[in-house]
Amino acid sequence: MTAEIAAAIAAIRLPDAEAARRAAQAMDEKTKPLGSLGRLEALAVRLAGIYGALDFATEPRAVVVMAADHGVVRQGVSAYPPEVTAQMVLNFAAGGAAINVLARSARVETVVVDVGVATDRTWPANVRAMRIARGTADLSAEPAMTLAETEAAVGLGIRLARELSDRGMRVLATGEMGIGNTTAAAALTAVFTGRPAAEVTGQGTGVAGEALQRKIAVVERALVRHAPDPAAPLATLSAVGGLEIAALAGLIIGGAAAGLPVVLDGFIAGAAALVATMLAPAAKDHLIAGHRSAERGHRAALDRLALAPLLDLDLRLGEGTGAVLALPLLDAAARILGEMASFASAGVSRER
Amino acid sequence: MTAEIAAAIAAIRLPDAEAARRAAQAMDEKTKPLGSLGRLEALAVRLAGIYGALDFATEPRAVVVMAADHGVVRQGVSAYPPEVTAQMVLNFAAGGAAINVLARSARVETVVVDVGVATDRTWPANVRAMRIARGTADLSAEPAMTLAETEAAVGLGIRLARELSDRGMRVLATGEMGIGNTTAAAALTAVFTGRPAAEVTGQGTGVAGEALQRKIAVVERALVRHAPDPAAPLATLSAVGGLEIAALAGLIIGGAAAGLPVVLDGFIAGAAALVATMLAPAAKDHLIAGHRSAERGHRAALDRLALAPLLDLDLRLGEGTGAVLALPLLDAAARILGEMASFASAGVSRER
Repeated sequence: MTAEIAAAIAAIRLPDAEAARRAAQAMDEKTKPLGSLGRLEALAVRLAGIYGALDFATEPRAVVVMAADHGVVRQGVSAYPPEVTAQMVLNFAAGGAAINVLARSARVETVVVDVGVATDRTWPANVRAMRIARGTADLSAEPAMTLAETEAAVGLGIRLARELSDRGMRVLATGEMGIGNTTAAAALTAVFTGRPAAEVTGQGTGVAGEALQRKIAVVERALVRHAPDPAAPLATLSAVGGLEIAALAGLIIGGAAAGLPVVLDGFIAGAAALVATMLAPAAKDHLIAGHRSAERGHRAALDRLALAPLLDLDLRLGEGTGAVLALPLLDAAARILGEMASFASAGVSRER
Repeated sequence: MTAEIAAAIAAIRLPDAEAARRAAQAMDEKTKPLGSLGRLEALAVRLAGIYGALDFATEPRAVVVMAADHGVVRQGVSAYPPEVTAQMVLNFAAGGAAINVLARSARVETVVVDVGVATDRTWPANVRAMRIARGTADLSAEPAMTLAETEAAVGLGIRLARELSDRGMRVLATGEMGIGNTTAAAALTAVFTGRPAAEVTGQGTGVAGEALQRKIAVVERALVRHAPDPAAPLATLSAVGGLEIAALAGLIIGGAAAGLPVVLDGFIAGAAALVATMLAPAAKDHLIAGHRSAERGHRAALDRLALAPLLDLDLRLGEGTGAVLALPLLDAAARILGEMASFASAGVSRER
């Protein structure tokens, strides 16, 4: 492990238990039946612990869309051709993709990062060109990345989180783009949850029938070939990739080290979070599951992470869409704690 | 039935099937795997049908908080004293309640209406004083309202919906306040879903144990005494109340008549929607379930209405909180349809 990664892990502090306790107490003084705001109350208390304060801002904020390609696409695991990764990066840059639209709706800055797109295109200025490799190798035949590439991608995510925190961002959301990446995420999810490939490998962009069986077989072959050890997360990540997942693992660790909540999107984010929390268990307290994806392996990942998703809308798009859609709930939780009257201040009678 | 109610019911049009069809088609051209935005896509298509357009605004919008008291509180069905209804109206007027805070967060105007608060207080100017009676009679002993009162309350809701539509509101959300109103809502839910009282009577503001058993017995007594006929919704509403529920039923009918989507809050809103859709079946197509309440009878109401809630966060506060929390999802659906690029416009390759 590089010194940079080790330092970021060491910098993660536990949530402020005293702030969380005071938030829970303040919540019980608000003009509402005890506990009647349900999971919004729990979210507010968690955020108070993360920020170490009862009064906190959830803006400005950013969604980081890490883009990379996957050598495993040559096995026919995706319904889309691999050039779509680069095409979608241009779509992000032009503001026309789902994540752009939803980010505008929720007042979120979209940060697009080329971590490993296999293309000769040059990007517009609003794409961060931080490419580590032109995609990964085919994880079913050889290690997807070298250890050096893996550590570089994690380090990139850590530095980006620090940069965004330094720019004043109060929440980070995870996004990604990479044709083939549900195959890599399925392999990672299988390793870290202990579930068989068939249970955590799903339709991705829309494979079914024989193609889905082929995708499951590819994941199974990778698991046999690499025999990845869940106790060795960086080696596992090197074996089955991908670059954007490694970068997201870094973003999670870096976000936690900066004392920020990190809102996870779906299945790919879940795989990155499994890696990140194996490397840095303390990062878990900074994670918020934006939604439960319709991608079948996501449930297993969330169970392993012990995270209850805020939304459950059958999304399976990725890009960060499910994370960004959940951000208004963080705003709501913050305002409940910061702005709502107490029984005493509003002159409202309490329970009999 | 009054001429006003009959006219509003007659004015409800079916959604524009052609606009919905074009929206579904446009959705399939967007740069994402087919169907990958899940329920957000279905929501966008429904909204296109309601608005009769693919490009529509979901702002400005209002949540209408109907407040009224319930004679049944003398039976000890609530954890809070009845004066809390009036105290909370003042809290709404001062902007300190949960609904105010969440409405600010989601850019929603809060309209507070005294439909039937049992108080001698005079209200600040930002409370609409439209009181029909000083609360209802005790539904376990006598009819909660006269038929004239019931029709007046429904008419009030219809006129308010029209007024808000005339002021340019694009979405209406239902809110309410009334100590004792989960008892009335439980009775209505039992009648319109055919479920026994014990299955649809819940904790409300927080009753449990013996108090909950007493509450269930009160609902059972009311059902025996009035033997309400689900095919006679206004008579049923008169029998078990309440004034705010009748006003919400009117708001739903009026909102549908004005061609607007009406976003429902939880259990009380569900009871109002059961009444409204018995009176005006066509109103159903205008309803969006903001959330599933933790109040136990809400699930039965949503099943009967065939509505899938957008959020499921264990809320049981009422006031309109669950409806307002869901509004950013309507914004997101609108933007997806209006702003997202197509495969052709973005130069992205389609499925192979």
